[in-house]
Amino acid sequence: MTVRIGVIGTGNMGADHIRNLQRFVAGSQVTVVADYNRATADAVAAESGARVAADGDALIADDEVDAVIIASHDSTHYAYALAAVAAGKPTMCEKPLAPTLAECEEIVAAEAAAGGNLLSLGFMRRFDPAHTELKAAIDAGVIGQVLRVTGASRNVVSYPDTTSESIITNSVIHELDSIPWLLGSPVTSVAWLAGRATSKVPEGVADPSLTLLRTADGGLTSAAMYVNAEYGYDLRTEVLGEKGALSLTDPALVAVDLGRHRSTGYPLDWRPRFADAYRLELGAWVASVADGTRSPLASAADGLAASRVAAAVITSMHEAGRWIEVTR
Amino acid sequence: MTVRIGVIGTGNMGADHIRNLQRFVAGSQVTVVADYNRATADAVAAESGARVAADGDALIADDEVDAVIIASHDSTHYAYALAAVAAGKPTMCEKPLAPTLAECEEIVAAEAAAGGNLLSLGFMRRFDPAHTELKAAIDAGVIGQVLRVTGASRNVVSYPDTTSESIITNSVIHELDSIPWLLGSPVTSVAWLAGRATSKVPEGVADPSLTLLRTADGGLTSAAMYVNAEYGYDLRTEVLGEKGALSLTDPALVAVDLGRHRSTGYPLDWRPRFADAYRLELGAWVASVADGTRSPLASAADGLAASRVAAAVITSMHEAGRWIEVTR
Amino acid sequence: MTVRIGVIGTGNMGADHIRNLQRFVAGSQVTVVADYNRATADAVAAESGARVAADGDALIADDEVDAVIIASHDSTHYAYALAAVAAGKPTMCEKPLAPTLAECEEIVAAEAAAGGNLLSLGFMRRFDPAHTELKAAIDAGVIGQVLRVTGASRNVVSYPDTTSESIITNSVIHELDSIPWLLGSPVTSVAWLAGRATSKVPEGVADPSLTLLRTADGGLTSAAMYVNAEYGYDLRTEVLGEKGALSLTDPALVAVDLGRHRSTGYPLDWRPRFADAYRLELGAWVASVADGTRSPLASAADGLAASRVAAAVITSMHEAGRWIEVTR
Amino acid sequence: MTVRIGVIGTGNMGADHIRNLQRFVAGSQVTVVADYNRATADAVAAESGARVAADGDALIADDEVDAVIIASHDSTHYAYALAAVAAGKPTMCEKPLAPTLAECEEIVAAEAAAGGNLLSLGFMRRFDPAHTELKAAIDAGVIGQVLRVTGASRNVVSYPDTTSESIITNSVIHELDSIPWLLGSPVTSVAWLAGRATSKVPEGVADPSLTLLRTADGGLTSAAMYVNAEYGYDLRTEVLGEKGALSLTDPALVAVDLGRHRSTGYPLDWRPRFADAYRLELGAWVASVADGTRSPLASAADGLAASRVAAAVITSMHEAGRWIEVTR
Repeated sequence: MTVRIGVIGTGNMGADHIRNLQRFVAGSQVTVVADYNRATADAVAAESGARVAADGDALIADDEVDAVIIASHDSTHYAYALAAVAAGKPTMCEKPLAPTLAECEEIVAAEAAAGGNLLSLGFMRRFDPAHTELKAAIDAGVIGQVLRVTGASRNVVSYPDTTSESIITNSVIHELDSIPWLLGSPVTSVAWLAGRATSKVPEGVADPSLTLLRTADGGLTSAAMYVNAEYGYDLRTEVLGEKGALSLTDPALVAVDLGRHRSTGYPLDWRPRFADAYRLELGAWVASVADGTRSPLASAADGLAASRVAAAVITSMHEAGRWIEVTR
Repeated sequence: MTVRIGVIGTGNMGADHIRNLQRFVAGSQVTVVADYNRATADAVAAESGARVAADGDALIADDEVDAVIIASHDSTHYAYALAAVAAGKPTMCEKPLAPTLAECEEIVAAEAAAGGNLLSLGFMRRFDPAHTELKAAIDAGVIGQVLRVTGASRNVVSYPDTTSESIITNSVIHELDSIPWLLGSPVTSVAWLAGRATSKVPEGVADPSLTLLRTADGGLTSAAMYVNAEYGYDLRTEVLGEKGALSLTDPALVAVDLGRHRSTGYPLDWRPRFADAYRLELGAWVASVADGTRSPLASAADGLAASRVAAAVITSMHEAGRWIEVTR
Repeated sequence: MTVRIGVIGTGNMGADHIRNLQRFVAGSQVTVVADYNRATADAVAAESGARVAADGDALIADDEVDAVIIASHDSTHYAYALAAVAAGKPTMCEKPLAPTLAECEEIVAAEAAAGGNLLSLGFMRRFDPAHTELKAAIDAGVIGQVLRVTGASRNVVSYPDTTSESIITNSVIHELDSIPWLLGSPVTSVAWLAGRATSKVPEGVADPSLTLLRTADGGLTSAAMYVNAEYGYDLRTEVLGEKGALSLTDPALVAVDLGRHRSTGYPLDWRPRFADAYRLELGAWVASVADGTRSPLASAADGLAASRVAAAVITSMHEAGRWIEVTR
Repeated sequence: MTVRIGVIGTGNMGADHIRNLQRFVAGSQVTVVADYNRATADAVAAESGARVAADGDALIADDEVDAVIIASHDSTHYAYALAAVAAGKPTMCEKPLAPTLAECEEIVAAEAAAGGNLLSLGFMRRFDPAHTELKAAIDAGVIGQVLRVTGASRNVVSYPDTTSESIITNSVIHELDSIPWLLGSPVTSVAWLAGRATSKVPEGVADPSLTLLRTADGGLTSAAMYVNAEYGYDLRTEVLGEKGALSLTDPALVAVDLGRHRSTGYPLDWRPRFADAYRLELGAWVASVADGTRSPLASAADGLAASRVAAAVITSMHEAGRWIEVTR
């Protein structure tokens, strides 16, 4: 059986998903696309052989769409997710599930009422071979009981109009899903702090910043973020256990000796780093849709959990860095 | 259009190809399989939903086979390749193209007579992201004119009944294709030498060994091979140019700190190292078959070229290590 | 002129200093030693050709002692430092300067009254080639304005009777000197926190722990410490600036490929890591004594500053992790 | 007892030795210096407090010289070494022992006639902590019986008037001593070859080049040399044994993340790489002189052995790369 997929949002992320589906995901076919910007949708449709739907709602309702990918603007996720659940169609939604906690909760409730297993969240780190190998080693007890996690994420430059809060909801959010997933333990309380900000951001924006997470297993995580790091897209994680430590290696493939230096390259953004992860994630999702089995991706509940942690981090930010309990 | 694929040989390599096609290659379907060992073929067929053909010839002739993969024993490649060419079906053949030079030449001539672009060779390094990035940097002139290449390949343990010659035709053969491909320059002469052999091989088998290659661009390559290295599957390549050098990095994903050591792992064989390469190779091959475009894989001529170099290396081995010109 | 040196305390640290002076510090001679344990002093004296003094006070007063090294138990530093200042003899004291802040302040005042430049503190990181190269790059502006420092220190096993407080005064103290030295900016406020403790420590001991430091330049430092890390002595530092980052590399000299792993070794304690630093530190100190120039080692004031920060960290520990201003 | 040292040759190498002796070698004093260029000798003498002798012969005869360092031009080593032996003074001579094999043999014979243990050769790799750790691991059997060694040495730029032969006698010579020292097995035969030369050298100069060595233990070594590598001073060694491999790590101390790259630096020449080795070598030599024990440095016989291998390499170079037996 071929899974016929409709893709809402044909910007960078959506177009990447379409190219990956067409080349690297057996048993899938992109049949319909939609975008707020009709010209973009037309161009992608021409390249991919898909039809263009009038809008996301029409796409979800389309008879030639078995499953939906939501890669449109964050502000549209809530309505499309609810519509997809109502239509009973398996859906992969890019993070966040919805902009507000109340909306996330409404979606999770709607999905549960519809029988569950309809919504998947695109936290692609869960399919990155480095992250899955890291999790497997933790689970195998290689380092004993986990005590500490130290993470650092850097982007080259921030999005326009970045705020201290949007850095949490757009960028730190990946850590807020990946840390509890790696440890198999939910985040229970958080604190946020920052030092001197880079001169590249306007007054009042905190970049870099440091988010501290306590998980139910007693682990303490420091998640450092710098979205204007300039030098490259860089992601580091170390997990310290009672008797040892695990860390992600530098993923560069080729080293260059030149001009008194040995160097490896950093990509401009996260996409080269996660190219394989995106292919594996889409393949796993399509296979679960085709087989009618439980999606191995992050669930709507996982998306809600990450959003709850993000909300608590922002509360700490607004309350002088004090520790905030995460609501359940 | 879905490309219907028949796979001859359902051992490790063939079974891996089938799993990759089914999950990660859009637009492909494995319809028929065949194996000398009927039980193996039946098991793979049951898992994959393919039919079992009586033998490779029947598979090639099958109406539901648009394209063929030859992953059976080396000794069968010659006959199946000729049959596939006669049937006019695009075919990916694992190396070697055929056991003898004369057979390789006959196959290349038959393919040319049939119009060409039917046969592709499974030299998967050409699709490994590390190797393609290395080649791109060479081609971009990052290090200037290439002067030297230093390669080292290690396997954990040799195949049963390994001989000094079979180490060249089975293992060093990958270097004999990848070096001229990386440099864009054919091998013109070769020499072979060895020192003390490991005590793990019988008297008369040379392992480790060192193969020296001169390419038309004046480059000198040292390709070291040790098939009983025990410590892990390991592959290293450094390309030295006038003003700098390029080298492949350690592909390990996770580092472990434990018991007074920091370590990364080596795989038991080449398959984890090239998992991504195999998926990309199969995807590129299927796309070229579907589109009727030129296959981007190594060609039958490339396979013949590698076999000619291997033959010259073996001549050097038998003639006290003297330099041997490679015939064209 | 040969500087005649008396060494108080002939345990591991003192004996190492004596060996280094005898072999690698030109212009020095160890003339007198003293130790609470007379047998130890006798053994070291026999090996080194030095005389044994009755006690530290007698050593300080000895006519054949031009300069003093205090490497005895922490509890003795206060009295010996004051005696050495009173005798007007240049003295290198291992950290801490004294157990209490009041004692440190008294020593600093006494030294100032005596004209200054008598006391040096053995914060050897200041002479480690890796740390001096790191500081030089910061000072050269390679990464722009410093924003964040992330440090991690691990020991194999804690000293007997370790407490959460002694981890700060014995181990974290090195960070409390090296961070302001690297940044050229004093620590202004601190906070301390911990998560789950290793099962290897008694109830109530916090290990690992995390010390946060704010420096006058606005920088925020996270200094992680785990004294029962088991896997090896390990020290990591990353300094993040506006446009880039600097980090210490793995100092291992030889990599081993064996048994499916590539590994480098960790030492059992800090001494191999800082062997070169100790030689360079002693050489620089002896040269300054011989030349009558200002000691390039950490000063008594630096030692007092580190102790003030340590006291503030312990206050934070006792006050639920709240931020504490460092007194001047 | 203080060893009074006379240093012949106050160029870069001699001046470095003097500075190291004055700061980092206890029990030594540089009393007399000499140089072909009197102004250079005067400047060094003024800085170091040494006297200037009229010439090397006067220095060797000087009553205030207990031991001699020969760091003058290669062409002078023969005469000074013989004079020092005749004077019965312990002498450290920079490589080569003498320009011709006949001269080397004469010196070795003269030293033997004088009772031996007078001459040491400055092959400083034997005191480099990385090389000594590598040798210790080989000797401990970590990787089993050694089968292969792969070395690569690169300089930034060649000396003026470099020839294919001088690359062997000036640069490859270090490998010709360090390989048999590491393996504990003499070189028995050699071959030399080269591919395309860099455009930076005149017609007829072979750079890069490859020297192959067979040792008595059956090991095969490939020693690659490129003296115009431009990118940095770089030295790599891998030793492959039956069950594993050992390799020197990148000695850089600080990594820099900047402008889309992570990099470590290469020095302009070998001196920073071997700063510690020179200090340890001088310390060990002076200690052996003071104690009247056997010098732990390379002996005159080792220097002769390396020169014999170099002569054989040059013979191979002149005879189309054929294998040449090394005379004993």
